[in-house]
Amino acid sequence: MLKNRHLIDPMDFTLEELESIFKLGEQIMKNPEKYQDKCKGKILATLFYEPSTRTRFSFETAMLRLGGQVVGFSEPGSSSVSKGESIADTIRTVGCYADIIAMRHPQEGSSKIASLYSDIPVINAGDGGHQHPTQTLTDLLTIKTTKGNLEGNVIGLCGDLKNGRTVHSLLKAMSRYKNNKFILISPKELAIPEYIKKEILQKNNIEFQEVRTIEEAIDKVDILYMTRIQKERFDSEEEYLRLKDSYVLDKNKLDKGKNDLIVLHPLPRVNEISYDVDEDPRAKYFYQAKCGMYVRMALIAKLLGVE
Amino acid sequence: MLKNRHLIDPMDFTLEELESIFKLGEQIMKNPEKYQDKCKGKILATLFYEPSTRTRFSFETAMLRLGGQVVGFSEPGSSSVSKGESIADTIRTVGCYADIIAMRHPQEGSSKIASLYSDIPVINAGDGGHQHPTQTLTDLLTIKTTKGNLEGNVIGLCGDLKNGRTVHSLLKAMSRYKNNKFILISPKELAIPEYIKKEILQKNNIEFQEVRTIEEAIDKVDILYMTRIQKERFDSEEEYLRLKDSYVLDKNKLDKGKNDLIVLHPLPRVNEISYDVDEDPRAKYFYQAKCGMYVRMALIAKLLGVE
Amino acid sequence: MLKNRHLIDPMDFTLEELESIFKLGEQIMKNPEKYQDKCKGKILATLFYEPSTRTRFSFETAMLRLGGQVVGFSEPGSSSVSKGESIADTIRTVGCYADIIAMRHPQEGSSKIASLYSDIPVINAGDGGHQHPTQTLTDLLTIKTTKGNLEGNVIGLCGDLKNGRTVHSLLKAMSRYKNNKFILISPKELAIPEYIKKEILQKNNIEFQEVRTIEEAIDKVDILYMTRIQKERFDSEEEYLRLKDSYVLDKNKLDKGKNDLIVLHPLPRVNEISYDVDEDPRAKYFYQAKCGMYVRMALIAKLLGVE
Repeated sequence: MLKNRHLIDPMDFTLEELESIFKLGEQIMKNPEKYQDKCKGKILATLFYEPSTRTRFSFETAMLRLGGQVVGFSEPGSSSVSKGESIADTIRTVGCYADIIAMRHPQEGSSKIASLYSDIPVINAGDGGHQHPTQTLTDLLTIKTTKGNLEGNVIGLCGDLKNGRTVHSLLKAMSRYKNNKFILISPKELAIPEYIKKEILQKNNIEFQEVRTIEEAIDKVDILYMTRIQKERFDSEEEYLRLKDSYVLDKNKLDKGKNDLIVLHPLPRVNEISYDVDEDPRAKYFYQAKCGMYVRMALIAKLLGVE
Repeated sequence: MLKNRHLIDPMDFTLEELESIFKLGEQIMKNPEKYQDKCKGKILATLFYEPSTRTRFSFETAMLRLGGQVVGFSEPGSSSVSKGESIADTIRTVGCYADIIAMRHPQEGSSKIASLYSDIPVINAGDGGHQHPTQTLTDLLTIKTTKGNLEGNVIGLCGDLKNGRTVHSLLKAMSRYKNNKFILISPKELAIPEYIKKEILQKNNIEFQEVRTIEEAIDKVDILYMTRIQKERFDSEEEYLRLKDSYVLDKNKLDKGKNDLIVLHPLPRVNEISYDVDEDPRAKYFYQAKCGMYVRMALIAKLLGVE
Repeated sequence: MLKNRHLIDPMDFTLEELESIFKLGEQIMKNPEKYQDKCKGKILATLFYEPSTRTRFSFETAMLRLGGQVVGFSEPGSSSVSKGESIADTIRTVGCYADIIAMRHPQEGSSKIASLYSDIPVINAGDGGHQHPTQTLTDLLTIKTTKGNLEGNVIGLCGDLKNGRTVHSLLKAMSRYKNNKFILISPKELAIPEYIKKEILQKNNIEFQEVRTIEEAIDKVDILYMTRIQKERFDSEEEYLRLKDSYVLDKNKLDKGKNDLIVLHPLPRVNEISYDVDEDPRAKYFYQAKCGMYVRMALIAKLLGVE
């Protein structure tokens, strides 16, 4: 049922479809050798109109570990394919050579347009500040395999909740599962937008509270999702200096957290998680990167129908 | 007999050799799985001293679909291999690592030089405005598999016939087959060069006529080969505005064409073929891109002798 | 015993460990097909923070010829992985996707730092002017397979002996084997540094002499290792013009060399070896490039424990 579909928006798939991806992802994690030839003879094209080495590596290793192959470009300079040519033509030409496309583009909606003209599955690998659906799949598989369940969690979201695409997508995605509660941790000027509160949280009667510091939330959360706050986002330099430490997770703060808490981060981090947290077994952000590869393996296999 | 040969000029191969490549290309198209391990253990090096994503993807997917592997660079910036080093040394070094080379270089004749020093087959993937022989092979395989025959066609060549490398090569190549006639469609200032008329067409007693608009030719041609006209090529802005529509193929003009006409284009197109033509079954330019991959598969297999 | 180790410095491995790599390298050279699936399912990440096509191709083809796969970047522009992120985090993330890393970085010591944080083997593919250990392995395998022995050779090192990283490493490496003697051929201002003479040569009672021209050494050496002299390194333009020909090997000079002499060069050459030398059977620098691929195959197989 996922064969030949596109993935453009994190909400494109039903809960059942997501479940089938996660189930396959878990099976691949447990027994990767069983899947190492599933995509033999298939080619993934990675069309990265802006560089994102991490995401590109994740897609490419996913395809290679399925026995498939990869062609691609990783920056605008080498993408002559686009010179004076419409995205529609580029996509149709690439569709003559490859079997599936992962596309990253600085312009919002570009992946959607691409999918409209494509005979082969298109995966949105990030379109500007808009969507990055495989990051959301990554987050969900990480939660599912560590907490055992996507329902009934208290989820702390920390950092720039106003502009963070990752955080908005995760909040929407986790709102589809029962009994999740949110604690939104951010400075006032970077609080979650009103439309998300209204259209997602309140509309679905989801419990949430807003706090200003990690300290206020740390002993209540099952999942702490950290993101970066850019200095430029604060109202003033003084505000930044006054507040920045409230959004840095260190060993001291983590010590007050639950024993089965998991700490996530989409990476790259800059300094919002201290290095002394890395050795704590609750730090799951590198495990999360690994889940990113496995969930992409499952996704590619599903869209190619080679499961 | 093609094993270990180079392909630098579209005329390098005899008609028999070309025929063997097209025959293999057709077999691969019909039964790709039979060929998916033919190049196992072989490596193609794509040395692209100028970016050309389309051509590079075509070569790379060709090699990968034969079970081979690829290393390469796609723009001058990453080609330190060339810093202060002669092409001869670069080629001999790459020959220590790889089994076959596809080389694109902005300088005319560079592929020829490369081939002189190479122990492994070199394929010219475009050397400046000079030659691009695998495009010609692509065009021929497309014609052969759609028209059934490379002989006895009326071929319309439309656009900038003065500067178009692709068109010159196709004209030379099709002149080797019996009973082909040409209709050359271009503005006067972009007409086919005299030396081609004399040395190719008249010398071989090939029938041709020159017209100024697509309308004059559309009901007579079996093949309409469209190419781009760059605005800068016209004598004046007024001339450009007056003439440009004559070289744009749209549904209206196409409606007057034969039922078994095929429309080709080397791609990328800018606006010389309207989007409303794409859905017409006579539009074969994306099929042509697909043929480009298959003919490169056949070529690589032949040059490596792994057929 | 080499499984899961890193290679950062040419001196990291014992003579026995080196011997096991060379032995495997020779076996692969003789019977490459036996090893063509050894790394099936394994992925090499080539992290090249500065371009070096030659070295990158050598690593990538090595991995591909073992049946493994490759992801990578080849220049800073596409390495968003490093934006504001520590090398430690980059390496740990790449370690989630890949099985082994080859890293080239303009900064000295960067590979060492990377290895400290890596769960998977890190190979230093050049860190600034510091170390380039796989070049040294390449040189040793070339000598071993041509001379039959790493002991008892008279080794001429020619060119810029003051700044040449390759030459320093080779000298240190060959000093570990018995009965090797050195003839150091360089202008006075580019002579081998005093600390190398003291700490390597004199300390180990290794015979050596310093001369000013190739002519003085050519009839005595078993191995002539040529390197480039950059014009800027000379004290003056006059000095350069007076001396430069003394460090160019041509057929005339080579004619006075032993019959079983081998001429090596790390490549790329500029003009320090005349093209007329290339046809001489004693010219082994392209064979040396080939050895570079085979020794990297052996190294990768050893570090991955897939032998």
